[in-house]
Amino acid sequence: MKVGLFGFGRTGRLVADEIIKDKDCTLSWVVRATTQNNHDFASDLLGYPQLKEGRFFTKEEALAPNFFETNPVDAIIDFSSSQAVYEYAHAAKLDIRIVSAISHYEPKELDFFKGLSTHTAVLHSANITLGINFLLVASQVLQQIVPHADIEIVEEHFREKKNVSGSALKLADKLGLDPVTHVNSIRVGGILGKHEVVFGLPNQTIRLTHDVISRGAFATGALFAARYLMGAPKGFYNMEDIMRETFIEKISVDRILV
Amino acid sequence: MKVGLFGFGRTGRLVADEIIKDKDCTLSWVVRATTQNNHDFASDLLGYPQLKEGRFFTKEEALAPNFFETNPVDAIIDFSSSQAVYEYAHAAKLDIRIVSAISHYEPKELDFFKGLSTHTAVLHSANITLGINFLLVASQVLQQIVPHADIEIVEEHFREKKNVSGSALKLADKLGLDPVTHVNSIRVGGILGKHEVVFGLPNQTIRLTHDVISRGAFATGALFAARYLMGAPKGFYNMEDIMRETFIEKISVDRILV
Amino acid sequence: MKVGLFGFGRTGRLVADEIIKDKDCTLSWVVRATTQNNHDFASDLLGYPQLKEGRFFTKEEALAPNFFETNPVDAIIDFSSSQAVYEYAHAAKLDIRIVSAISHYEPKELDFFKGLSTHTAVLHSANITLGINFLLVASQVLQQIVPHADIEIVEEHFREKKNVSGSALKLADKLGLDPVTHVNSIRVGGILGKHEVVFGLPNQTIRLTHDVISRGAFATGALFAARYLMGAPKGFYNMEDIMRETFIEKISVDRILV
Amino acid sequence: MKVGLFGFGRTGRLVADEIIKDKDCTLSWVVRATTQNNHDFASDLLGYPQLKEGRFFTKEEALAPNFFETNPVDAIIDFSSSQAVYEYAHAAKLDIRIVSAISHYEPKELDFFKGLSTHTAVLHSANITLGINFLLVASQVLQQIVPHADIEIVEEHFREKKNVSGSALKLADKLGLDPVTHVNSIRVGGILGKHEVVFGLPNQTIRLTHDVISRGAFATGALFAARYLMGAPKGFYNMEDIMRETFIEKISVDRILV
Repeated sequence: MKVGLFGFGRTGRLVADEIIKDKDCTLSWVVRATTQNNHDFASDLLGYPQLKEGRFFTKEEALAPNFFETNPVDAIIDFSSSQAVYEYAHAAKLDIRIVSAISHYEPKELDFFKGLSTHTAVLHSANITLGINFLLVASQVLQQIVPHADIEIVEEHFREKKNVSGSALKLADKLGLDPVTHVNSIRVGGILGKHEVVFGLPNQTIRLTHDVISRGAFATGALFAARYLMGAPKGFYNMEDIMRETFIEKISVDRILV
Repeated sequence: MKVGLFGFGRTGRLVADEIIKDKDCTLSWVVRATTQNNHDFASDLLGYPQLKEGRFFTKEEALAPNFFETNPVDAIIDFSSSQAVYEYAHAAKLDIRIVSAISHYEPKELDFFKGLSTHTAVLHSANITLGINFLLVASQVLQQIVPHADIEIVEEHFREKKNVSGSALKLADKLGLDPVTHVNSIRVGGILGKHEVVFGLPNQTIRLTHDVISRGAFATGALFAARYLMGAPKGFYNMEDIMRETFIEKISVDRILV
Repeated sequence: MKVGLFGFGRTGRLVADEIIKDKDCTLSWVVRATTQNNHDFASDLLGYPQLKEGRFFTKEEALAPNFFETNPVDAIIDFSSSQAVYEYAHAAKLDIRIVSAISHYEPKELDFFKGLSTHTAVLHSANITLGINFLLVASQVLQQIVPHADIEIVEEHFREKKNVSGSALKLADKLGLDPVTHVNSIRVGGILGKHEVVFGLPNQTIRLTHDVISRGAFATGALFAARYLMGAPKGFYNMEDIMRETFIEKISVDRILV
Repeated sequence: MKVGLFGFGRTGRLVADEIIKDKDCTLSWVVRATTQNNHDFASDLLGYPQLKEGRFFTKEEALAPNFFETNPVDAIIDFSSSQAVYEYAHAAKLDIRIVSAISHYEPKELDFFKGLSTHTAVLHSANITLGINFLLVASQVLQQIVPHADIEIVEEHFREKKNVSGSALKLADKLGLDPVTHVNSIRVGGILGKHEVVFGLPNQTIRLTHDVISRGAFATGALFAARYLMGAPKGFYNMEDIMRETFIEKISVDRILV
């Protein structure tokens, strides 16, 4: 799978690194904001001088006519900013799959992004790690299996993080929990991101826990999504949906008919 | 649901207590080994003097002709010993559902137990808590979603527990892990039973954890099984299967077609 | 050590059981509220028919002149109610040590209790488990070692527990943390009592965690306190102080002079 | 405090970054193996172009006569290799404090290193994080407080780590535990380093846990050690000793005399 990346900030850099390390992927190019460039390739800057992956382009270069024709990729992954959607709109018409991990779109931007789904398969998820999406699906199923269980969400992040974790809020929303009383936010030190869903029954407790070790976890999720989109019909997807679909597909494999 | 219970040892007693406390269940009777009896009803002995639930019978009384006709129940739950299977064989012919949580059957006993499935729905599971069976199903699905993840099992129990936890061995077996190298047994103090499945990816860790607070957790699982069997055709079931079936049923409810 | 126990409710019963099981202790008697008594000894009721420990007395019997002379003990442990302090006042004059685990005293009662310290060594602690007191002392030391660390307290209890855990509030108080923002209370299912102090540094996290398995943990703490008081001069003690003193004594044993 | 750093590998680089970020420290220079150098200062390479901290020198330059006189520092921190001890021997004679975090010395090298303690305060610790050393001291004290507790050590690291964690072995050694049966090693994914000491009592469990978020944690420990050495007489120290001394000093501050 040939991938083009939008965004080369703190997270984008780690995403580039993960794509380069992935044996089944090639990082074709990277569109970055800054023109300050000592390196022509992301692979040079990241310490793989022999690879020549991830040629840098500016936004202006990416907006040139025929950019996506002359720099063809299978999928675009976007970790830049909400406006980038206008920069790769043309790619959608070439049936290039698009995975966006932008944390927030304005309504107008989101509508435009969704509009691309008439041409290709596009996905947007602010919480794109496999772990969070596994927690989302598994905890919703568990809630239905043990409807009388009490459920609490605990999220731990670095001290500077001001808001309640968006992933925790999404978990609360999907589980029908009031986030004010049921999401517990711990802010200490340098914790990158931990989420725990606690199911309490009178005689037992079940916990589903996700710990981020490195922001490279976002890349793993984005590549999982891109691979899924490669085999999917055009349309607008989100990460939780494809995790649920994968769940259903995988659980049925070893289903034992009774 | 009217329930008859075989076994009134340390766990059986807690199971009786849970059945009595369950609003949708009646504990009709209890077959216990000992004849030493200051009480006629389990509810008296357990501190519910007004209820008169769980009339005590001896094995000999249970073996009398017409015992199950004159003391009709919807389901039998067995926390006694492997030989009890011969004592309630007749009940199967009356289509009384049977849930056995016996930890070990000899092959001959198990064959006999399975034979009852020609008459009614019967279930045997040595690991009958909802938590362990949720871990079994969810971790098998997760393994398929992230096949490159490293998986380790940690189980913690009270110091006197000699063998590796049977539930941990079952988890290892289902996940294709060598139990010698991948099951880590912690034996300290009075821990009733904790199981954790750790999924390690390069950039994130996912943990599924189950903690037993009281052996009453076995009752919750047994009642869950009994209710499932009430709506199921005759046959031989185990707890993991019905957890998987429930998973599939529940996950499909809010399936979002993409 | 010969022990007399006040209180035979849910916790008192477990405390009696622990004292009976302790090889170095004898449970001489138990003062209980109710006169409803099928048994003469706590050991009978708790399933040790051969032991004859813990003869039951009523409050009225305990108030009889010469009760403590004719029923001598080394220490009294109180898990009953705040008024009991008036019932064993005379025991203090006989230099019987007194350990009270009453959760709340009115100011007048507490003054009276403290007054007993002119005669013997007395201790009051609402949070009497070894674990909580270890957390109290160790976390205060750690806070001084890493003064820039962020600290959060997480406490988990059964759903019916209405108030914030007193132990968590005491931890917050001692660590100088605003309990409203730094104590996180999880209420789910049947968790007996879990406390965690999280120290977050930019590059590492340290957690001190205490899990109660059974309320018998209160007995362990009370017996630890009673043993300490046996070797201590008269005065008013609390559990945290004697844990700190023990800390200092033990840490100095293997102190390596540099 | 002015610091000179030996070593600029994966960990050394993070250590340099931490020293630069520390308000009370200046990174005067860095001795690195490679001469391949696009930058004159570590601060340039690490993204602080305005600071000009950590001027790079080669080993050969550091061996020049008068290097330490013309490039004076208060303390040297060594994250390079065991041979570096011969490179900074002269610094010891100038009473420059030395903190070595080298994981393994040959006996001859260690003897030489210890010999420097006749001139200044020197410290060697293969496990230099504050967290591990807090666990070492606190768990030894706790073991003495609850001598009947069962103790197990769990350590989790990235899949490629072949050997049992040296920190876990040291914990086992200090606690008198057979490492073969009492150290449980989990190898999954990318976990940087987690150590847990579990104390099991019949009715409660106490856990001391340390999680590394970034190898910068080694820098925090090294700087803590360097500061301690600044106020200490000449001699040979290790991290556990100074943690124990700090414990004793801090616990006595708020000691409540009973």
